[in-house]
Amino acid sequence: MTFTTRLTELLGIEHPILLAPMGSASGGALAAAVTSAGGFGFVGSGYASSETVHREMLAAGNVRIGVGFINWALQDRPEALDAALEHDPAAVMLSFGDPTPFASRVKQAGSLLFCQVQTLDMAKQAADAGADVIIAQGRDAGGHSGHVRGTFGLVPSVVDAVAPIPVVAAGAVADGRGLAAALVLGAEGVLMGTRFAASKESQWSEVLKQGAVAAASDDTEQTRVFDIVRGAAWPTHFPGRAVRNAFSARWNGREEDLANQRDAENARYDATEAGDLSTGVLWAGEGVDLVKDIPSARDIVLRTVAEARKALGASWPG
Amino acid sequence: MTFTTRLTELLGIEHPILLAPMGSASGGALAAAVTSAGGFGFVGSGYASSETVHREMLAAGNVRIGVGFINWALQDRPEALDAALEHDPAAVMLSFGDPTPFASRVKQAGSLLFCQVQTLDMAKQAADAGADVIIAQGRDAGGHSGHVRGTFGLVPSVVDAVAPIPVVAAGAVADGRGLAAALVLGAEGVLMGTRFAASKESQWSEVLKQGAVAAASDDTEQTRVFDIVRGAAWPTHFPGRAVRNAFSARWNGREEDLANQRDAENARYDATEAGDLSTGVLWAGEGVDLVKDIPSARDIVLRTVAEARKALGASWPG
Repeated sequence: MTFTTRLTELLGIEHPILLAPMGSASGGALAAAVTSAGGFGFVGSGYASSETVHREMLAAGNVRIGVGFINWALQDRPEALDAALEHDPAAVMLSFGDPTPFASRVKQAGSLLFCQVQTLDMAKQAADAGADVIIAQGRDAGGHSGHVRGTFGLVPSVVDAVAPIPVVAAGAVADGRGLAAALVLGAEGVLMGTRFAASKESQWSEVLKQGAVAAASDDTEQTRVFDIVRGAAWPTHFPGRAVRNAFSARWNGREEDLANQRDAENARYDATEAGDLSTGVLWAGEGVDLVKDIPSARDIVLRTVAEARKALGASWPG
Repeated sequence: MTFTTRLTELLGIEHPILLAPMGSASGGALAAAVTSAGGFGFVGSGYASSETVHREMLAAGNVRIGVGFINWALQDRPEALDAALEHDPAAVMLSFGDPTPFASRVKQAGSLLFCQVQTLDMAKQAADAGADVIIAQGRDAGGHSGHVRGTFGLVPSVVDAVAPIPVVAAGAVADGRGLAAALVLGAEGVLMGTRFAASKESQWSEVLKQGAVAAASDDTEQTRVFDIVRGAAWPTHFPGRAVRNAFSARWNGREEDLANQRDAENARYDATEAGDLSTGVLWAGEGVDLVKDIPSARDIVLRTVAEARKALGASWPG
């Protein structure tokens, strides 16, 4: 049972399911597990860390995977892209900023260029930059995304605007109903983050994984406070969706105050046990309501396909 | 060609497409046109105005329609519900606040109770109140909605939580791909606003309709400034999605200032020509990218069904 789409054909994979390149979750082990299950895994490069790239590309062994970058971070450390290309990744994903400065190097190296966008304007920019695949990410997503567009409306808008470039849906996709909805909206597949972050092979701690299982989507929100306290220089138009906790409740709306006393707060933040979710960040998208267990990546891929097939009926092509 | 769902069976209609009860757009003529095309129309009651209710219910003639209320406004003017029930509406929609105080009157009068909700918690409240149908409205919607949940993630969450109560998807649904996606996410139909606001039978001015055709979803945003200047007492957790213009650009982030000088600004706001979209509000959801013409309500219903059938393939049940 599978879905054949232009994405599966382009990547030479069985199922149109991609792993989001999440820092501190999508290491080589998880990326390899998603690919081995018939999907396709992207390792996260952190903030364009060559060391992370080398380590996690090697950790994937001989399994065909990709790597994802944060464009504004890559601008400061462009050598991380060279590090990635040494490993001949099947695909490179560029997100959060203009992909144009890096696009030609990716394509010249023979990797497929995936650009993740958060608005229709960014989609057009990615098309102009030569993207082979465009990922339309709604603000429903966990972790960082835009704040302007939601998944439901963004996907068909981007599909119409960039045709015939294949589009992948991201943001609140956490089960087969989400995959099925993405396909009928015109996408060629999905990118899943939160669902895979709470998998056996994820780099997340057990506390974070159990936190995702317990979390309610109503309790997630886009915020900048975790970036401010960690000193992560995210542009203000890319907030991060996390589960509301005591720390975010204290600082939301007081971002300037937090920035002004960052050193003290950062020390306090780092000193809390990593397992203290009343302070530490639990990134989660609005699909987290649907995350009720911590299965293997393979189980997630196969279950998602089976659910989508059930949601769509047997006659869906592929 | 149609889709038979638990919604169409409950309402005795042909197509699972509902007209949102939009103030200043969904009058009796539009509601009747949607029902006559095989969907189901809700007239807007404004801010619980008995006069509007009587006038628009009568304007629908003998066509079977419903009426929608804003719960916090109905609290102040409960007589508007009595006015509505005099017309034996097939359904009453309650939205934006706790439906419990009004639920039993609706059901005792023999009307179906539709509750529109914006979070999973509100969905559970509506189920407890005895809702016959629950409309899950994402913040992707035009006009007023919540700011916590997006359509893509909210729909399956609500479907799971309130089963077997039928769920309808709202927010950025503007074509047949959206209807198809709603169905595979587990909804029994859709509620469309912006798409019908830009129809021939809508009460909107030609300037507003053409404005919607010209608008880009990237340029919509949730804001409170139009409510503040008009003196509409919306709770802060129900902002309104509108197309950004000079007025909203001037006041966003300065809501308190605007409230403090409301009298002067209100006079200025009212004095601008209704056709001046640099000041006046153009409510629009994130589906507005897909609004490219001003057809009849019948054309919208039939086109949406045909597109959904194409998106889903012929074997979809119904």
